[in-house]
Amino acid sequence: MSTRSRRAVVLLSGGLDSATCLALARRTGFECHALTFDYGQRHKIEIECAARIAASAGDASHTVYTLDVAPFAGSSLTTGGDVPKDQIEPGSDGIPSTYVPARNLVFLSIATAYAETLGCSDLFIGVNAVDYSGYPDCRPEFVRAFSDAATLATKRGTEQNHPLTIHVPLLERSKADIVRLAAESGVDLALTTSCYDPSLDETGPIACGRCDACILRQRGFRDAGVQDPTRYAESMIR
Amino acid sequence: MSTRSRRAVVLLSGGLDSATCLALARRTGFECHALTFDYGQRHKIEIECAARIAASAGDASHTVYTLDVAPFAGSSLTTGGDVPKDQIEPGSDGIPSTYVPARNLVFLSIATAYAETLGCSDLFIGVNAVDYSGYPDCRPEFVRAFSDAATLATKRGTEQNHPLTIHVPLLERSKADIVRLAAESGVDLALTTSCYDPSLDETGPIACGRCDACILRQRGFRDAGVQDPTRYAESMIR
Repeated sequence: MSTRSRRAVVLLSGGLDSATCLALARRTGFECHALTFDYGQRHKIEIECAARIAASAGDASHTVYTLDVAPFAGSSLTTGGDVPKDQIEPGSDGIPSTYVPARNLVFLSIATAYAETLGCSDLFIGVNAVDYSGYPDCRPEFVRAFSDAATLATKRGTEQNHPLTIHVPLLERSKADIVRLAAESGVDLALTTSCYDPSLDETGPIACGRCDACILRQRGFRDAGVQDPTRYAESMIR
Repeated sequence: MSTRSRRAVVLLSGGLDSATCLALARRTGFECHALTFDYGQRHKIEIECAARIAASAGDASHTVYTLDVAPFAGSSLTTGGDVPKDQIEPGSDGIPSTYVPARNLVFLSIATAYAETLGCSDLFIGVNAVDYSGYPDCRPEFVRAFSDAATLATKRGTEQNHPLTIHVPLLERSKADIVRLAAESGVDLALTTSCYDPSLDETGPIACGRCDACILRQRGFRDAGVQDPTRYAESMIR
């Protein structure tokens, strides 16, 4: 059995976490099929970043799957309001306005269909329940429940020997841990993007430096003692 | 509280089961938002049937959501092989070639996102575990597991008072029961389509009469003693 004989579908947003997750999946010996979603997000630049990350990973195939934004409307990451700035904004119900309805449920479901069509039994998702924004679909209990549902939804639920495995290697890691893991695993950090509200100039994207994702990213690099190659318009972190 | 103040998302394929499910949801007092998927199915005629059924239901809104076929490839309902004829074909693993990878998982996930965006707590799906083709994603254990995952994936999983409810009113019904329920509920049976491999002439679609779905439909009408308005090219049922 070659070290690349097992195939996995890896969700790749173009951010730091998913790029690190892809690197870990490759390091574990998987032939990786990266899957990126265009769901009407404001920060479409991440799709281009994902393509570059997948290309730089060598053996990974890369698919961009387009979803109409309607079911995801109302989030400040899609069609609703402004992206909050300058604080990790929890929302009145503890969930920030950047929450996108059922996003990981939908993404993992389509990844499950892809995996079954490709004949593979492994999915990777870079969700994180430590330094994150409080999204319900990043919690370990969601991942466990999804795994049960996805197994029952497919042929795997009727076989004994090939259960669907959802790998969440970053679930319990701090953002600083993830930065260190990324650096150790050879992730080209300059290809990753985190900003929810980037702008563009003639040389490329500029992160706002003030949204939740920028704040968490900057703290992670600072705490890991790793240089952040991102260009920021402004920065809250000293 | 008016009888139409509760909203529900109802999956509507255009078939007998989903049309009956929609009628039952309306009869229960829900304002129904019907959701149909164009996922590259051969029998695209069902999408037009769904639109007519939703229009005939009066207050229901209707959305057709398009999904690229790639994750669903290989099924004989999409891009793989021929639709089997003349017997309920179980496949070597007990699952027929018309099985579409993780279809109900994906459909219910997108419906969950829609429901959250619309602010409603109820989904209806016309799955049936009695007279059906043996698809894993029609089993009650899948629906239960999905309900848990969907609740945890959304804001509902962080609130106590609005759990997501997935209604499966046809789950334990025979096809004959469903035909009777449809007739009692005022479903226009002539608008529903079941065939996986229909043809067309100048007056409209003609069901093959020989695929799994046609066989189950014809048996259901026969056993219910209800006239089937479908035009069949051939028929296995006497």
